[in-house]
Amino acid sequence: MTNCTLCKDDIKPEEGQLIWRGDDCRIILVNDLDLPGFCRVIWNRHVPEMTDLTGGEREHLMTLVFAVEKVMRHVMHPDKINVASLGNMVPHIHWHVIPRFKDDAFFPGTAWSNKTQETPVPVLAMRQQKSAELVDAIKAEIAFLA
Amino acid sequence: MTNCTLCKDDIKPEEGQLIWRGDDCRIILVNDLDLPGFCRVIWNRHVPEMTDLTGGEREHLMTLVFAVEKVMRHVMHPDKINVASLGNMVPHIHWHVIPRFKDDAFFPGTAWSNKTQETPVPVLAMRQQKSAELVDAIKAEIAFLA
Repeated sequence: MTNCTLCKDDIKPEEGQLIWRGDDCRIILVNDLDLPGFCRVIWNRHVPEMTDLTGGEREHLMTLVFAVEKVMRHVMHPDKINVASLGNMVPHIHWHVIPRFKDDAFFPGTAWSNKTQETPVPVLAMRQQKSAELVDAIKAEIAFLA
Repeated sequence: MTNCTLCKDDIKPEEGQLIWRGDDCRIILVNDLDLPGFCRVIWNRHVPEMTDLTGGEREHLMTLVFAVEKVMRHVMHPDKINVASLGNMVPHIHWHVIPRFKDDAFFPGTAWSNKTQETPVPVLAMRQQKSAELVDAIKAEIAFLA
């Protein structure tokens, strides 16, 4: 759809970084200063809901979402993983996969809740560094799946 | 775990209503005055993350989540479905499946964002009624899956 930001298959450097692109899906590392490591798994075609996909497509997408979760836990050791498909603003299937830490800006709220605290700057910098490792680790995991 | 609210496998009438219980999961209709039809699919055992489950267990759980989504769309005709597994407060796998409407209290934010508006009372009452239908329709769908 011409007015859908996720149908435009480009990503500005200030928004994030493409980790992997397949025929059906792509995975990006979101440039989120408060939540380093935040990833998004996006269905390439404009489809609003998971139940608009076939069972096989759904399974393929969820396999990628949980592959990202697995690698994220391994690389970043978060206190919790958050996984969500919302799309109220952009009704084009995209899964948020977010490493959450007890000292992150929104904990224990959601990534869309009000800020509760400031994460110490050196901690954020360390997580930022880890999120760069995440990119290569996700690529390797997806190559292993394929 | 003794201090986990989701390990206590009971539900107070003011919190919601059990729709279905299986060996591994249960489905409840959440009593949410702002978001009638809000359902939760809960893994019965205390497991924090999706990637702590086996592939088969994960598939079983997601089949139920998407069965709830399918029935919710059919019965309630929402503008969008929101699906999320967060667990920052209660790290015991539970999926929120939420019918969202352009006039609901939080739209276009998440169900955990600040309120943006008041839904007209008769509209809420009508959705409340629909959510009662949802209970039977989900039971029928799960019976069909089994």
